[in-house]
Amino acid sequence: MVNVGVVGCGYWGPNLIRNFSNLKSSRVVSCADVKEDRLSHMKQLYPTIRATNDFREILKDPEIDAVIIATPVAQHYPVAKEALEAGKHVFVEKPLAQSVEEGKALVELAARLGRTLMVGHTFVFTAAVNKIKDLIWSGELGEIHYVASSRVNLGIFQEDINVVWDLAPHDISIMNYVLNSRPVSVSAVGQSYIRPGIEDVAFLTLKYPQAALANIHVSWLNPNKIRSTTVVGSKKMLVYDDISSLEKIRIYDKGVTMTPHYDTFGEFHLSYRYGDIMIPRLDDAEPLKTECQHFVDVIEKGVPSRSDGDHGLDVLLALETAGRSMRERGAEIAIEYPPRTESAK
Amino acid sequence: MVNVGVVGCGYWGPNLIRNFSNLKSSRVVSCADVKEDRLSHMKQLYPTIRATNDFREILKDPEIDAVIIATPVAQHYPVAKEALEAGKHVFVEKPLAQSVEEGKALVELAARLGRTLMVGHTFVFTAAVNKIKDLIWSGELGEIHYVASSRVNLGIFQEDINVVWDLAPHDISIMNYVLNSRPVSVSAVGQSYIRPGIEDVAFLTLKYPQAALANIHVSWLNPNKIRSTTVVGSKKMLVYDDISSLEKIRIYDKGVTMTPHYDTFGEFHLSYRYGDIMIPRLDDAEPLKTECQHFVDVIEKGVPSRSDGDHGLDVLLALETAGRSMRERGAEIAIEYPPRTESAK
Amino acid sequence: MVNVGVVGCGYWGPNLIRNFSNLKSSRVVSCADVKEDRLSHMKQLYPTIRATNDFREILKDPEIDAVIIATPVAQHYPVAKEALEAGKHVFVEKPLAQSVEEGKALVELAARLGRTLMVGHTFVFTAAVNKIKDLIWSGELGEIHYVASSRVNLGIFQEDINVVWDLAPHDISIMNYVLNSRPVSVSAVGQSYIRPGIEDVAFLTLKYPQAALANIHVSWLNPNKIRSTTVVGSKKMLVYDDISSLEKIRIYDKGVTMTPHYDTFGEFHLSYRYGDIMIPRLDDAEPLKTECQHFVDVIEKGVPSRSDGDHGLDVLLALETAGRSMRERGAEIAIEYPPRTESAK
Amino acid sequence: MVNVGVVGCGYWGPNLIRNFSNLKSSRVVSCADVKEDRLSHMKQLYPTIRATNDFREILKDPEIDAVIIATPVAQHYPVAKEALEAGKHVFVEKPLAQSVEEGKALVELAARLGRTLMVGHTFVFTAAVNKIKDLIWSGELGEIHYVASSRVNLGIFQEDINVVWDLAPHDISIMNYVLNSRPVSVSAVGQSYIRPGIEDVAFLTLKYPQAALANIHVSWLNPNKIRSTTVVGSKKMLVYDDISSLEKIRIYDKGVTMTPHYDTFGEFHLSYRYGDIMIPRLDDAEPLKTECQHFVDVIEKGVPSRSDGDHGLDVLLALETAGRSMRERGAEIAIEYPPRTESAK
Repeated sequence: MVNVGVVGCGYWGPNLIRNFSNLKSSRVVSCADVKEDRLSHMKQLYPTIRATNDFREILKDPEIDAVIIATPVAQHYPVAKEALEAGKHVFVEKPLAQSVEEGKALVELAARLGRTLMVGHTFVFTAAVNKIKDLIWSGELGEIHYVASSRVNLGIFQEDINVVWDLAPHDISIMNYVLNSRPVSVSAVGQSYIRPGIEDVAFLTLKYPQAALANIHVSWLNPNKIRSTTVVGSKKMLVYDDISSLEKIRIYDKGVTMTPHYDTFGEFHLSYRYGDIMIPRLDDAEPLKTECQHFVDVIEKGVPSRSDGDHGLDVLLALETAGRSMRERGAEIAIEYPPRTESAK
Repeated sequence: MVNVGVVGCGYWGPNLIRNFSNLKSSRVVSCADVKEDRLSHMKQLYPTIRATNDFREILKDPEIDAVIIATPVAQHYPVAKEALEAGKHVFVEKPLAQSVEEGKALVELAARLGRTLMVGHTFVFTAAVNKIKDLIWSGELGEIHYVASSRVNLGIFQEDINVVWDLAPHDISIMNYVLNSRPVSVSAVGQSYIRPGIEDVAFLTLKYPQAALANIHVSWLNPNKIRSTTVVGSKKMLVYDDISSLEKIRIYDKGVTMTPHYDTFGEFHLSYRYGDIMIPRLDDAEPLKTECQHFVDVIEKGVPSRSDGDHGLDVLLALETAGRSMRERGAEIAIEYPPRTESAK
Repeated sequence: MVNVGVVGCGYWGPNLIRNFSNLKSSRVVSCADVKEDRLSHMKQLYPTIRATNDFREILKDPEIDAVIIATPVAQHYPVAKEALEAGKHVFVEKPLAQSVEEGKALVELAARLGRTLMVGHTFVFTAAVNKIKDLIWSGELGEIHYVASSRVNLGIFQEDINVVWDLAPHDISIMNYVLNSRPVSVSAVGQSYIRPGIEDVAFLTLKYPQAALANIHVSWLNPNKIRSTTVVGSKKMLVYDDISSLEKIRIYDKGVTMTPHYDTFGEFHLSYRYGDIMIPRLDDAEPLKTECQHFVDVIEKGVPSRSDGDHGLDVLLALETAGRSMRERGAEIAIEYPPRTESAK
Repeated sequence: MVNVGVVGCGYWGPNLIRNFSNLKSSRVVSCADVKEDRLSHMKQLYPTIRATNDFREILKDPEIDAVIIATPVAQHYPVAKEALEAGKHVFVEKPLAQSVEEGKALVELAARLGRTLMVGHTFVFTAAVNKIKDLIWSGELGEIHYVASSRVNLGIFQEDINVVWDLAPHDISIMNYVLNSRPVSVSAVGQSYIRPGIEDVAFLTLKYPQAALANIHVSWLNPNKIRSTTVVGSKKMLVYDDISSLEKIRIYDKGVTMTPHYDTFGEFHLSYRYGDIMIPRLDDAEPLKTECQHFVDVIEKGVPSRSDGDHGLDVLLALETAGRSMRERGAEIAIEYPPRTESAK
């Protein structure tokens, strides 16, 4: 049994409280928020959970094993740091922190203290994303040429972060996870249409070591919500449409075949095969429940984490490099990965 | 009555022959192709049309008023040049030519000789694109912030041109037409996944003088065919989906409202309105028929052309600049427009 | 403040507990179920709610004002009857009871005792169904000619009821509500493909007094889930697609115009207009929350109920008559409505 | 080489002229219509085809082998009869004739004279319908329980025939063809909303000998065009959506499994499996071209016809029986099939 305390009861916190409450192997002991109305709402919903406006009460509580952080991004680092220092395991919502520097410090701290640090990159716990990873690594798609992702909608304009930091963490996390790799370089262009200095539309290009390239299009300026990822392999292609409820993944038995065909005019022909489409059945489990259970399993059973601090830090590195590229008008910039921290666990 | 001769009976030529044959105010007198099987097929379908393997026979024929050019792009310039010099009006398929230099020479030649030069940018003759232009210029959308276009499919890989020259002419032509303007700069990034040196995926960013920015995404590497243009205005947004047969345009009563709202934390809020969606009824007329009739009307009645040589040249200027930007890894490059040629007509 | 007790914590009960718990003007005091595992699950989720395996404890509790019944259909009548006799207001899930006789007895009992009796016909609390009612009664659709409803899916085959009793209550409730009327006759044909004697596909035809006819197609034998209602008016038509999350209602500016046009051949022509499509924005409120609040408002403020016992009884009358028609191979059978019971309230 | 003459150049005739003109093994010699403007339009499109306002000129022409009849339905019988008597092979558009009596006479006449009689039931020449037949007869779907078809749209209201005669011939032809069978009984209910006495909405139920049942829903009163056929088998289900251009057939790996499971309450459970969806690639060939080529092959090579007079007569028998059932308010009526006529061929 893992006893948790939840810091932040705003937009996402209640979902985490609900899920950790419903697990057989965890219990929510207390929650914290600076806003009184959020606390009283939590008390009404969960009368047995203690509620406090001082998150340090949670850190001091010896009954609590793990701290769940669902605060605004700016608080991720200070709260996670104190929680680790208090000896707690830490689950922090994505992105891990506001900067690579902060993220690196957290990863090192968790490793040094032998505590679990996990980042809430929920997509790596979805049935769809895991199906994509299976399809890639079983070889069914062939060699992966290209991944393209669109994540656009009419934006909830954030005050402090641009559209890249708001939406692209999902795509980078998904791509790193399904390719089991990390981009070697990033280039990005972004535009600020609505608020000066805060990009609301951006295009990123990531280069992965195995020659695959990836594009990410994020936008707050689209009346249609699109959540689509296309993976182009030498044998098959797939499209992952996260908006669709029942048909999230479509596998196209189409591919590009390079046929070195020289006719009298010396022409070089490429052909594509067009074939059947397969829509695999996926499980219905709520990803957030899987994610919370995973956090408990990492702590209790020591299973390797799909979304650990290193994963979260890799995402920060890509985001920060994208920001530099945007300021340099799209220049391709290599990502310098720090050496992986050895865990004391 | 305009008597036409058609040069090129391959992929697109037969459609032009059929349309000019069916118009009351035009007649197809002869057609030319270098391939005997195409000629014999044309003879079977249209026994009364003369067929020749020498396009110069068409140019010499005094009965013929206008020459329709549907050859491979490399022949656009030489055939159009000779046709104009032979005193014919000229309709040339898009793109106008292989380079700005060629295109400029044709525009100047047509102007000097007082002949009509029209480019087959078919989209400007569709009901959907004209509806978009109406919606923009009636003010219904408000100020135009942003236009985004996706034109992707599993490519018919071209031997000689990249995906930008294959697909983006449509988008540039549409944007210039509906905005009634021309981009002042272009930046573009492209990638060659399948054939070295021939980009099969590209992203273009165009800046228009009235502050609107536009993105174009073209790709030959997508199993789903997408033909989508989003126009974001201050009052409303629209999405034009050319794949849909009955619901091509959707007008979203959503917009971005800048509300300078300062609360105790000094936050600056933006809100968006989410409202009704309207799908306007569009006419069913075949755009190619409208286009062919327009060419006849330009010649016979002197109506101003929606798709004249200047329009075609503007598209070439954007394409050529995009190519330079791709070679410079996405640098933003200003387009230098030559002065408009005064027509002798 | 209305204190409620919930009888039945299986499939639907927890949703009702959640909603009545979250309302400011109601409180869930206790819940009952015969299965221990359901009770212990409720205790875990809502530690402050008393849980019992004997629903009569709820009826005896003087603190409780209203009883919510979410048991299997067979228990609706006996539990509701006892609850009314114990002086409680009663909310019973749809359908009101297993037979017209039972339903009639409940309506009369509630009226005699001056208690509120409400049936959980949730659709009449949705934004979409209320929008349809508004569109009909504002005259925007013109005279209503025809209503057609399809409610088909791959069935959860019920043991005790056929597809008509499982699915058609929704359609009958919706139609009676939006037309503000009741069918004068029903004919129905049904087929039993999978289990002998239990119809899994059925077609109903209802005649309404104002000349409108309605069809209902229900099926447990369809791999695609369809929830669609079409309303054909003389001026406009609409299609209500309950599967769609954002575009539930589409209003077609099409209608059938009777033009008595006699040409030389004495032909009689009908034309239809094809026009714009409008997708109105609907509110996002959870219908179940609206429904629960409505029950509280009926009790506390005496507002007229959209879904009272009479409404539930009308649905039972149509269902029972449809059953008779199916046994008579589709014969049209008039519905004999009992006189409305005068309420003692 | 089969020389054909086409009678009727209105709505459908020009498509037949175009297809028979483009086949290598047939030639259109002449065409007939009573309207001068249709004839002159045909002359303009096909200057080498003779055009006449007297169809008997075609019948008298010894050069002509086969007569194609695309007249209004009332003329099918008299023209086909005269053409057969003149020794011509006959292709007649669907439905074969206005009544079973007429259809039977034509089938007998063709058999007696040893001429080919084919009916233009185009759907049996589509790739989709033939895929369905393959899936059924390969056993992939398992035992066929149920077929349901919807063919609804905003009607082109016919003057002389009701919606059953207008739309249901397609469904009956498809069902007889894919099941390789004929219904033993029909029941039908229809309603006349717009024009008294002419049904514009109807539901048909067909019983096939192998225990499969089929429903057909036809309507001229629906703003959405639907062309959908669902086939429910014991192993898999499929949905054929003829509106979709690229995804006409979806095969659902779902079926109904009867599990005789008795628990302590003696309940009997049915479960359904929910699994993958497969969208098979279909050929793009124009069905009308396949159909015309088939007619030529039947004449020249004696291949068995998929759509011969018997097939057309079976459809008439179902239609006429449906009409009787509608007049008897939905009574189930057995179809009395006449003995198959032995062909003299």
